[in-house]
Amino acid sequence: MEGLEKSIKEKGSCLCIGLDIESRLIGYHDPLEWCLDIILKTHQWCILYKINLAFFELCGIDPKVVINYCHKLGVKVIIDGKRGDIGNTSEVYKKVIYDKWFADGATLNPYMGYDSLKPFLDIEDKFSIILGLTSNESEFQRLKLEDGLELWEKIIIESSKWERNSDLWYVMGANKLKEINHLRSKGIDNYFLVPGVGHQGGDLERVLEVSGGKVIINMSRSLIYSSDIETSVKDQVSKMKGYV
Amino acid sequence: MEGLEKSIKEKGSCLCIGLDIESRLIGYHDPLEWCLDIILKTHQWCILYKINLAFFELCGIDPKVVINYCHKLGVKVIIDGKRGDIGNTSEVYKKVIYDKWFADGATLNPYMGYDSLKPFLDIEDKFSIILGLTSNESEFQRLKLEDGLELWEKIIIESSKWERNSDLWYVMGANKLKEINHLRSKGIDNYFLVPGVGHQGGDLERVLEVSGGKVIINMSRSLIYSSDIETSVKDQVSKMKGYV
Repeated sequence: MEGLEKSIKEKGSCLCIGLDIESRLIGYHDPLEWCLDIILKTHQWCILYKINLAFFELCGIDPKVVINYCHKLGVKVIIDGKRGDIGNTSEVYKKVIYDKWFADGATLNPYMGYDSLKPFLDIEDKFSIILGLTSNESEFQRLKLEDGLELWEKIIIESSKWERNSDLWYVMGANKLKEINHLRSKGIDNYFLVPGVGHQGGDLERVLEVSGGKVIINMSRSLIYSSDIETSVKDQVSKMKGYV
Repeated sequence: MEGLEKSIKEKGSCLCIGLDIESRLIGYHDPLEWCLDIILKTHQWCILYKINLAFFELCGIDPKVVINYCHKLGVKVIIDGKRGDIGNTSEVYKKVIYDKWFADGATLNPYMGYDSLKPFLDIEDKFSIILGLTSNESEFQRLKLEDGLELWEKIIIESSKWERNSDLWYVMGANKLKEINHLRSKGIDNYFLVPGVGHQGGDLERVLEVSGGKVIINMSRSLIYSSDIETSVKDQVSKMKGYV
């Protein structure tokens, strides 16, 4: 976390760029070359890249190659695969993500509970990023429990107490300002990874304000398919100045 | 589903074999060759193979090659990746699993709700296999809701009413006999995919009895690392005779 916080201060940015590479949107370019080009053009303003495994699987890009390239440029990378499985399978996913691809963090699905995430939580110097309330607002995340809490909130409160060595973040949709504010008021001071600014309509400045600075803003399609990506990225980062 | 049910009748088996290939357990063998050899030795008694993506990612096996091989031997294959993401990402995962690898079904994580699973539910002639109550018994799956139901049960009841074209199954741990029985008594007549017989201690015959036959038993490590795999498989299948 120290390295990342240093990078946030130095770059005046809390921007994570999601590498949602879609063959149908990049014409005749090679997906890997196109991806590395995006990284080269944006790494000065970006403090984290997010690899969405769905897109990498479809294009056939090896995450390891991209992660290695980002590391050479001094930027960390998280794997967005929403992992969570029985213990021995999660242990294998952890090996793939950290020992084979050398990523710096991973998104995790909490449905199968502590045991299913323990292999990730045990690792030092990595980011464990658990799904909280996502921007699509699922009917299950919103279920009311007998103690009055909603499911997404219960998961965050309980998991924030888990024993762990990794840094623990939560995914909160950019359109969930009230809920982000509510979590801060309840003393949840973990970092939030916030998707949904840009194409999904969330307001960047309001998110930064409400979350009290400990936030990483993820933007994907609205930046990487922009006709002038450097300008688009600089525009977004300029909005972050007072907050990071 | 018709093809699978025909295969169940013909083989007198409801056995799914999980291809949890671990390099550390197969000595100097090539993981792909070792995997295809398991399939060749077992396909007469097996009605479905399950590819656990964690193991395939770690070994570097291409699921497409294995699926193609299974299809030539007349056996269907499901991808166990516990997918579930926002709509456009789920759409991409669906393309990978069905249009790139040509699998016959996929396990799905329900946390992000209907929208996140819709791309899978929309497809005809495929199996959508949603996590119910897994054998590891997570603290979150067991949360009590304000209407008195537990979360896993609510998810099954609600999702069983969703509009869909695919066949809908649920994952229920082999040690969850009481809960399997409870679902049947509430009129949930979907197929269950049941892991946890074998290494995880569930009782095969009790599962078959309680679930009323509409069940696929998944066994992985307890079979594929057996010193005499044909005999081990035949032993398990012989226990299924009266039930399928």
